[in-house]
Amino acid sequence: MRPDTFSFQQLFDFTKAILQKIGCRDEHAATAANVLLSADLRGVDSHGVARLSGYVRLWEVKRVNANPALKIIHETPSTAVVDGDSGLGLVVAPFAMQVAIEKAKNVGTGWVSVQNSNHFGIAGYHAMLALQHDMIGIAFTNASPLVSPTFSVERLLGTNPIGVAIPAGEEPPFVADLATTTAANGKLEILQRKGGVAPLGWIQTKDGKASTDPHELKAGGALLPLGGDRDHGSHKGYALGAIVDIFSAVLSGANYGPWVPPFPAYVPMPDEQPGKGIGHFFGAMRVDAFRPADEFKKHMDKWIKRFRNAKTIKGEERVLIPGDPEREIEFERMKMGIPLLKPVIEDLKFLSERFNVPFISTKPVT
Amino acid sequence: MRPDTFSFQQLFDFTKAILQKIGCRDEHAATAANVLLSADLRGVDSHGVARLSGYVRLWEVKRVNANPALKIIHETPSTAVVDGDSGLGLVVAPFAMQVAIEKAKNVGTGWVSVQNSNHFGIAGYHAMLALQHDMIGIAFTNASPLVSPTFSVERLLGTNPIGVAIPAGEEPPFVADLATTTAANGKLEILQRKGGVAPLGWIQTKDGKASTDPHELKAGGALLPLGGDRDHGSHKGYALGAIVDIFSAVLSGANYGPWVPPFPAYVPMPDEQPGKGIGHFFGAMRVDAFRPADEFKKHMDKWIKRFRNAKTIKGEERVLIPGDPEREIEFERMKMGIPLLKPVIEDLKFLSERFNVPFISTKPVT
Repeated sequence: MRPDTFSFQQLFDFTKAILQKIGCRDEHAATAANVLLSADLRGVDSHGVARLSGYVRLWEVKRVNANPALKIIHETPSTAVVDGDSGLGLVVAPFAMQVAIEKAKNVGTGWVSVQNSNHFGIAGYHAMLALQHDMIGIAFTNASPLVSPTFSVERLLGTNPIGVAIPAGEEPPFVADLATTTAANGKLEILQRKGGVAPLGWIQTKDGKASTDPHELKAGGALLPLGGDRDHGSHKGYALGAIVDIFSAVLSGANYGPWVPPFPAYVPMPDEQPGKGIGHFFGAMRVDAFRPADEFKKHMDKWIKRFRNAKTIKGEERVLIPGDPEREIEFERMKMGIPLLKPVIEDLKFLSERFNVPFISTKPVT
Repeated sequence: MRPDTFSFQQLFDFTKAILQKIGCRDEHAATAANVLLSADLRGVDSHGVARLSGYVRLWEVKRVNANPALKIIHETPSTAVVDGDSGLGLVVAPFAMQVAIEKAKNVGTGWVSVQNSNHFGIAGYHAMLALQHDMIGIAFTNASPLVSPTFSVERLLGTNPIGVAIPAGEEPPFVADLATTTAANGKLEILQRKGGVAPLGWIQTKDGKASTDPHELKAGGALLPLGGDRDHGSHKGYALGAIVDIFSAVLSGANYGPWVPPFPAYVPMPDEQPGKGIGHFFGAMRVDAFRPADEFKKHMDKWIKRFRNAKTIKGEERVLIPGDPEREIEFERMKMGIPLLKPVIEDLKFLSERFNVPFISTKPVT
């Protein structure tokens, strides 16, 4: 199954056209396509165009509003709550991050909690929006419950990622984007396709037994919080996932815990909804609200260089700075194109026919 | 080695008297004693009075200033940088947290980065200071380098904890306080004393090999970031520890990474100092900067009840809410007293003679 390869521009244009067909206005469609493609570029294939048909299905069952009226429903000088009006998270999140950035311009930092949204793509993209303003960016989101807290067999949390982007000077920025689970769901999906074996600590069976079978999740099992089990600190991963959930949803008035709406449109909604849609949380901190930006960046460069040049364990090539692998993949994929798996291409072809949008050439780019 | 047991008041009075003897003014000595004792009460014995003699030794070698002039050296409406003037972190941290709280009263949130400080006790104590104001509290600190980033044999990070306290209504607050390592150093020390075996994923040898021998740390090995190894997400623990380091020290102008001053006074200072002292980072967010506080608390109660009542894995009694175990220990120790290990009691007796402060009765409280 050699995947075919497409350019960023081809996939961007196609994605944007499909989103316009479901009713997104030009600006929203472009923003959403950009967020989605940033995942493909950065190698997070599970969160890129592979999800386009999933978003369309949510629109079909009226769980996504293609033309949302985004608005601030509560605010102080440094905070806001945004109502996403059931819009695509891909559109709601950049809007909310922009609100955080404007507040940071005024009072040093801005913090925005979001209700009534949907899946927002990769956290790192939104956090990175702050970088061009010499700000530190932060992005959290809750997500469909797939994760069991330590000692539980119930799925009560999503993979609830934490994204943090920190500007540097000569060095590229520090960009952490991590699910608060041992392994993100996308990694498990790769093993499911390959028929591989998962390391212990990634998943448990429906009875809460440790398992290495990547199919256990679909059989009623659960992903495990970062740490895996109590001896290895899973209570810490559970606490971090809980913090993301509470900041994203209990602060904003979105659904939380087991009541977060599922991403797949065919999965029924939870029987109860204590809030609206899914929730996000964003932060922007002006670096010069703490010290002069050039001074900060000079020290970030020193930090980064020291860690990157650290002595490695024998056999390991180098110590990575968070964001290094994604940046390197992005550089390569901008040049060489984005490889897509066959089922993803089939999915895009289906959308092409369904919405009468000419499908991009399948001729490999290289 | 049955430990003797002392009341909170006995240990508080003694600790305060010792700190006054080294030159702390009354108010500072009381604050510091309170922070230190909160660790003993909450069961984090490694961060309580067991460290009192360590702080005194830092004062003896002139690395702690007993009478610091704490000041804000830079600020915006929602941020500040505090210079701790080499004071005890136990005194600097509550001051800085108060600055964050005042800013939150004015503009919704407050964020304070601290330079030129020392070890601040437990992160949870400082985060919890926000609770009485219906605010969410956040406390980070960097610490002496004991932790190797993923793929490295060098110790470049401290156990860099994250403390987050979130108010609830009828339920007790949610209080997470977690080292960004698989296991905190205190847990390793317990195993060293007992001669126990550490789970894989806690430590590595000086060559970067996985080890279960708790003495490897003293033989040049390192603690491992939360996750343990790359397959189990150690790059996430490393990223979290790095974020704590950068927020605490690169933002404030403190020392970071391998240049953080060591806690033991006998360990020489690093050969280079890119900043001043160690660094902390604090946040306070007014809940009603997002939604009415009673509404928020009602939903926090619902969140907490749902998780606490989750179905458990067979053999596990219940699912814990972050802060549950510490609160239960505190309740018991306020009633039954605080048990101290013999070497700790010896240490306190030594301080008693050294400073001519009458030692508390060793008669067990119960």
